[in-house]
Amino acid sequence: MVTHMGLVGLGKMGNNMRERLRRGGIEVTGYDPRPEVSDVATLADLVAALPGPRRVVWVMVPAGEPTRSVVQELGTLLGEGDVVVEGGNSHYPEDQARAAELGAHGVGYVDVGVSGGVWGLENGYGLMCGGEPADVELLMPVFDALRPEGPREEGFVHAGGVGAGHFAKMVHNGIEYGLMQAYAEGYELLAAKDGLVTDVHGTMKAWMRGTVVRSWLLDLMVLALEQDPSLAAIDDWVDDSGEGRWTVDEAIDNAVPLPVISAALFARFSSRQTESPAMKAVAALRQQFGGHAVKPAS
Amino acid sequence: MVTHMGLVGLGKMGNNMRERLRRGGIEVTGYDPRPEVSDVATLADLVAALPGPRRVVWVMVPAGEPTRSVVQELGTLLGEGDVVVEGGNSHYPEDQARAAELGAHGVGYVDVGVSGGVWGLENGYGLMCGGEPADVELLMPVFDALRPEGPREEGFVHAGGVGAGHFAKMVHNGIEYGLMQAYAEGYELLAAKDGLVTDVHGTMKAWMRGTVVRSWLLDLMVLALEQDPSLAAIDDWVDDSGEGRWTVDEAIDNAVPLPVISAALFARFSSRQTESPAMKAVAALRQQFGGHAVKPAS
Amino acid sequence: MVTHMGLVGLGKMGNNMRERLRRGGIEVTGYDPRPEVSDVATLADLVAALPGPRRVVWVMVPAGEPTRSVVQELGTLLGEGDVVVEGGNSHYPEDQARAAELGAHGVGYVDVGVSGGVWGLENGYGLMCGGEPADVELLMPVFDALRPEGPREEGFVHAGGVGAGHFAKMVHNGIEYGLMQAYAEGYELLAAKDGLVTDVHGTMKAWMRGTVVRSWLLDLMVLALEQDPSLAAIDDWVDDSGEGRWTVDEAIDNAVPLPVISAALFARFSSRQTESPAMKAVAALRQQFGGHAVKPAS
Amino acid sequence: MVTHMGLVGLGKMGNNMRERLRRGGIEVTGYDPRPEVSDVATLADLVAALPGPRRVVWVMVPAGEPTRSVVQELGTLLGEGDVVVEGGNSHYPEDQARAAELGAHGVGYVDVGVSGGVWGLENGYGLMCGGEPADVELLMPVFDALRPEGPREEGFVHAGGVGAGHFAKMVHNGIEYGLMQAYAEGYELLAAKDGLVTDVHGTMKAWMRGTVVRSWLLDLMVLALEQDPSLAAIDDWVDDSGEGRWTVDEAIDNAVPLPVISAALFARFSSRQTESPAMKAVAALRQQFGGHAVKPAS
Repeated sequence: MVTHMGLVGLGKMGNNMRERLRRGGIEVTGYDPRPEVSDVATLADLVAALPGPRRVVWVMVPAGEPTRSVVQELGTLLGEGDVVVEGGNSHYPEDQARAAELGAHGVGYVDVGVSGGVWGLENGYGLMCGGEPADVELLMPVFDALRPEGPREEGFVHAGGVGAGHFAKMVHNGIEYGLMQAYAEGYELLAAKDGLVTDVHGTMKAWMRGTVVRSWLLDLMVLALEQDPSLAAIDDWVDDSGEGRWTVDEAIDNAVPLPVISAALFARFSSRQTESPAMKAVAALRQQFGGHAVKPAS
Repeated sequence: MVTHMGLVGLGKMGNNMRERLRRGGIEVTGYDPRPEVSDVATLADLVAALPGPRRVVWVMVPAGEPTRSVVQELGTLLGEGDVVVEGGNSHYPEDQARAAELGAHGVGYVDVGVSGGVWGLENGYGLMCGGEPADVELLMPVFDALRPEGPREEGFVHAGGVGAGHFAKMVHNGIEYGLMQAYAEGYELLAAKDGLVTDVHGTMKAWMRGTVVRSWLLDLMVLALEQDPSLAAIDDWVDDSGEGRWTVDEAIDNAVPLPVISAALFARFSSRQTESPAMKAVAALRQQFGGHAVKPAS
Repeated sequence: MVTHMGLVGLGKMGNNMRERLRRGGIEVTGYDPRPEVSDVATLADLVAALPGPRRVVWVMVPAGEPTRSVVQELGTLLGEGDVVVEGGNSHYPEDQARAAELGAHGVGYVDVGVSGGVWGLENGYGLMCGGEPADVELLMPVFDALRPEGPREEGFVHAGGVGAGHFAKMVHNGIEYGLMQAYAEGYELLAAKDGLVTDVHGTMKAWMRGTVVRSWLLDLMVLALEQDPSLAAIDDWVDDSGEGRWTVDEAIDNAVPLPVISAALFARFSSRQTESPAMKAVAALRQQFGGHAVKPAS
Repeated sequence: MVTHMGLVGLGKMGNNMRERLRRGGIEVTGYDPRPEVSDVATLADLVAALPGPRRVVWVMVPAGEPTRSVVQELGTLLGEGDVVVEGGNSHYPEDQARAAELGAHGVGYVDVGVSGGVWGLENGYGLMCGGEPADVELLMPVFDALRPEGPREEGFVHAGGVGAGHFAKMVHNGIEYGLMQAYAEGYELLAAKDGLVTDVHGTMKAWMRGTVVRSWLLDLMVLALEQDPSLAAIDDWVDDSGEGRWTVDEAIDNAVPLPVISAALFARFSSRQTESPAMKAVAALRQQFGGHAVKPAS
């Protein structure tokens, strides 16, 4: 059972996690390329600082190339019985490829989906992991330090083999897209009827207790409206982090209908367009057949 | 069988129809509030100019209040055996209400959905009508003059009782929304891949013959791209005329799933928003839980 | 301020509410057409049992005709200063029409959206009301007895004038459709990947704390899976109670795009079809153009 | 310019194309593993039968493994200046990979999207191709024989480099999904209102001329209804061939919103489910919170 672990990546998320781990009694040696926040000078120093056997290094760096290169380097520094934990947002097939590579050198690999954002330091993080039972067992003190108070199974799951953690987190995020869009559509409809509903913020606040739609996202919506009742200071431009796209791709591969989650994803794409080529085409068609007025491009 | 009819409303559409009717051998007395285009001074003069029995007045004025008031006035001017034809875009329950009112005075009512836009003068108009068989029978020479060349049943239908014509036209327009959006989405995807597909206009033009997607709307799309290959001069703002809304309302009343037509309708609503309150809400939520960057409203 | 009120309708919902009101110190005289559950024999007896001035009768009967007739009868039994509370799921324009009628006799009308279902007796009910400030003020002890523990404004809102309560509840239910469908789609995708995610119930349970998607509906989803891990005993047939339809109708009237909530509504319509005429049409089209195999109707 | 070419794959599609090519004056040597339809015994014999320089072999076999292995074998049989034409439904990145492999041996590669189905023999095929200009030039007599009568550019396009032909065909098919679903939704709504619209087949037939929605797919819809007015003999189960999936995947990669085409794709997925796990989940949720009746699974 792990009592001292390595953590690579001390950005906002990694830094908060280190803090929560330490509060939970886990010794953490952190590495980050920025010397001013790092506990050691190099990744090799990090590995050297950890007690064996079964050293554990948790990787918490941006998905894609950064994660890939850290994991690869760790593969050369770690050995038989050690375990790499990928806590970022990797796409699950990448987990499976990396696990195979590391496994060839006897290094274990556990993928963990981590939910909770900036609130995780205080509330704890929801954790979904995938990997070999023995590796997950080794990590349990770490998971227990990170997860929220309460029954373990309400904030942690060993969802399946390698990849299952990130698959579960991907679906979690897909659902999140749908939930957010549902609240947002309701908000817009309430706000559109401002001659009747004179207190939109108060209405959504009244949903916080007792109603069917109460949730943490609703609480956040109320917070946002408390700070800015008409959201005047916020642009309607919404990014997407990739996991919503993977969710829809995955649904298509498995012939699973996903009308709501896909609609939420497409709404984000639309939100970022300064103009919609498709709607220009519809306007052009209407002009062609009906002589309908079109607005000249401004 | 009618050989001389009245026509109320000589706008772009009414004027073209009068022309096509005359070419087809129907005598038309037209009335419009604008004296410079009208054949008679008042609606009463129009009615007086028509030969009986079974006078026919076709109403071709904007939906809603204008149509309502013309039909009401005709109810006072016409009598037993005469027929009012509503050729605009009335909502079918209005047809049924008006038919009941006129029927109390022995005046017949036929609703006609007219498709074809500015091309109708040359190509003929697609016609869907609803009403009593005897009234429809009376109007056949008019319908034959207006409809396209070719077999009658490929450009005309007596779809059912009063309201069926406008119901059919409403569904026709709902389908039209879906078709246009489908082409538009395809156009956007082709245009997004301009490093690969170097000739978007040419690609859509090549679909005009032999392919599964060939249609009149595709021909118009090609025309539009011929005039403006990147639709640079056209704004992405798209109006909706009401029939798409009725189509979705009607589907909801009848528990008919309408994912495609409703998506096309909502895309038009979105196209007209300068900012989306819903997407502001999603952006606000993301900022709350994740500290995700938002764009300040510009 | 009310200490003794009338309650019409003692079904599952009304009965629970009477119990919670009594626990909260409100005297309740209940009327129901079923003598075995009713406190009085007739609606007139109910009204006679209430102390004046400003008698209060809460109506909790099925929407539509039942509510209409009870409210109408109350209009003849009550008088100046009395208040009818409509706690069912009326469509908000009906509230406005009834309030006008009752108002002509000096009787006030407050519409209240009540959320919480069978859990409300213990947890309290989320309440959204619309009406005149003086009428709402009168009812505050009743609202305080019904609403959940905690700050009043997290379980109660005076959302606006007459109709605003049911409008808010309608939007609440529309959002609810979207939320449920989002979880349901995620569940289906997890279940489809059962070779990877070996514990679907455990995965959703692990979302209960710390994650972004935690909510009361998620808790219920976990409960449902605890009782029946593959939902084997439940049919995929989903009713809709009308408020989702009104939400989409309202959005269309106000040109508000509602892709997610409408998709959730249409999914329910589809769930109830034994066969889909639309998909028969698509199959027929594919057969026509491509000689694609179709399945003969079984 | 080619006058004698090879054709691999003599199924329904390949056989019709050989016939149309021969009618167009192109000599065709066909190969198929079924000796009874093949002109030669082996692929090597086919290549040997073709005159050089710049031999042309058109591949018309099922997408995926069959196409892959034929193209690979042709790579070993053909040489400098020869051209392989992939006329099936390959995914465009595969085209690009194969072109690179063949190109290493001096063999050219042209990908062609072919539309028209069983009607192509008589009507001609819509053709979209991608490849090097010199290779496309070489093939023009072949394309001219296959494409419909009329201006070349209304039935043929050189859309761009290798892959552009199948990309264009993929988008064509995505649009096709949307168009079909739009007509199908309209059909269902007309049929749902059979008390008003008494002639659904006649109504859609009346759209064939003059209307905005006229198209070849509409003609086919009318044909289908002529044969079976209520589509009673056709099951509502609809397959998808892969190109709709690729279209949505591609849109997601390019952040292009595709609400209509994706909805059409998901409707097909749903049509093939004997029960919907998602809707079971929604039913389970409703039962949990409201005690709503559910149907036990049958």
